[in-house]
Amino acid sequence: MTDLKTAAELLKSKDNIEILTHHYPDGDTLGSAYALCLSLQSMGKNARVVTSGVPAHKYDFLKDSMKMQSFEREFVVSVDVAAPSLLGENLEEYGEIIDLCIDHHGTNSMQATDIYVEAQAAASAEIIYNLILELGCEITPEIANCIYTGISTDTGCFRYSNTTSRTHEIAADLMSKGADWQKINAVMFEIKSKEQLHLERMVYRTLEYHCNGKMALIYTTLDMLKGAGIRDDEVEGLASIPKQIEGVLLGLTLREKEDGTFKISARTNEGANAAEFCGLFGGGGHPAASGCTIAGDLDTVKSRLIKAAESLL
Amino acid sequence: MTDLKTAAELLKSKDNIEILTHHYPDGDTLGSAYALCLSLQSMGKNARVVTSGVPAHKYDFLKDSMKMQSFEREFVVSVDVAAPSLLGENLEEYGEIIDLCIDHHGTNSMQATDIYVEAQAAASAEIIYNLILELGCEITPEIANCIYTGISTDTGCFRYSNTTSRTHEIAADLMSKGADWQKINAVMFEIKSKEQLHLERMVYRTLEYHCNGKMALIYTTLDMLKGAGIRDDEVEGLASIPKQIEGVLLGLTLREKEDGTFKISARTNEGANAAEFCGLFGGGGHPAASGCTIAGDLDTVKSRLIKAAESLL
Repeated sequence: MTDLKTAAELLKSKDNIEILTHHYPDGDTLGSAYALCLSLQSMGKNARVVTSGVPAHKYDFLKDSMKMQSFEREFVVSVDVAAPSLLGENLEEYGEIIDLCIDHHGTNSMQATDIYVEAQAAASAEIIYNLILELGCEITPEIANCIYTGISTDTGCFRYSNTTSRTHEIAADLMSKGADWQKINAVMFEIKSKEQLHLERMVYRTLEYHCNGKMALIYTTLDMLKGAGIRDDEVEGLASIPKQIEGVLLGLTLREKEDGTFKISARTNEGANAAEFCGLFGGGGHPAASGCTIAGDLDTVKSRLIKAAESLL
Repeated sequence: MTDLKTAAELLKSKDNIEILTHHYPDGDTLGSAYALCLSLQSMGKNARVVTSGVPAHKYDFLKDSMKMQSFEREFVVSVDVAAPSLLGENLEEYGEIIDLCIDHHGTNSMQATDIYVEAQAAASAEIIYNLILELGCEITPEIANCIYTGISTDTGCFRYSNTTSRTHEIAADLMSKGADWQKINAVMFEIKSKEQLHLERMVYRTLEYHCNGKMALIYTTLDMLKGAGIRDDEVEGLASIPKQIEGVLLGLTLREKEDGTFKISARTNEGANAAEFCGLFGGGGHPAASGCTIAGDLDTVKSRLIKAAESLL
């Protein structure tokens, strides 16, 4: 465990730096990586971001001003990567050569020469904001965009329990530094593709209540995805639908996968424990948000879930 | 036009104060009124809130610690009321006896002895926050709840264009003062009744695209409301659905009313003007959000709207 000042000194002393994100890159890992890369480039260093998997197009505008640089790597930083397996396709090449790991997950289990984890930070982008100030870099509007994106996506726009006073203070500063926060929130939270909406329309029809209205479930099947013309990895934000319903303690979202299983997302309100529920099926996670995988056809999977919910609620 | 210091001095000099909200009271008018009332009561004054129309139950917890006091009114304050007509059922009794009007609508047209309008404030609750500090009152957790509610509901949880750096700074302070912001955001933005969800399920099925996908519309009918078991005034948040779809410039929501008309909400993205569109039907509003009313049956109303959209887009 190192401190932020040492992390900054390390980065200042290096010139050719690679920054790794976690796989299925989200707004926080990308915003953190792009913000750090832009800052290092502004210091005259060579820097580039190496993602695992291709980021969704909605993040593209964040790297508009990033220079593509070719160089021999000298120093490797990971941002927002909580465990080696989350390096995805980069695990083999990078797993044992990471020099500096920066993260906000308290459970961080990375191997790296130096590790800086700040579990109180709502997003890794909050740590990167502090690191950039420590590096003595200016927060340009482009860098502000990246950090704001990391913070707003990881906090559900200042709603999730990880949000702190500090989160709002940083947001205030990023706005004054020129972050295009309206565009970011529109792109990250509002705009839906016609295909996503078509799928949601079908998903709403699958809604079922069980356990006297204390459990609600929705599902997607491969046929539904095909009918809506949407790829599985393009589907967003379904898991919160059943949990939002008044009186529902446990909201389940079932997604049929190509391998004959269903991926289950469990979301709970006060009075139910998602990790406990998913534990019954070999899964786990947080008390309010967990997941598991169950093999079988839709009816079998549903009835196993309903039975488990009945025993728990 | 007075200033905040004078407004505070006025309030300090009075003992029996009534606070008016606008009709169909929302989170900002209620949060502002309750916060001011709690502060005045904490100063040993008599104070009460007079709403126009019964507030939705979800706001009830904000006044848990408010004392019910009976007294002869000496001083009347309106908060977040932009025009006399918005006093609703209280217009006749209070229209000409308001001593102090506090608001954040630049278009304010109230009659009052003293008026304090701060159009840069994202919410009236932001002004009340400053006023309470000016009064020398402590921001208790209960008062922080009221102000946070006003701010978060009027900014769509820090997303709408009225949000400023100052908004975030105040939110940071309210969190540190003990605001139960997680509960507030859950109650205000997440929890939906089973009836609301049932209606949404039906509404999704009504979605139509026109003008090569640049216009999208959804509708509710009286039959649909009846089928879902929901009252018209309980329906929330439908207007944003069609506007969120990728490629849609103009999103229309049609709601059938008891009097044989349809109330139209128009929401636009860059490239279309909702006020101009609604102006064609004698309505108006803001460039991004406007409304109008059209008489006729669903098919007639729809085809008039589609024709107008075709001419405009």
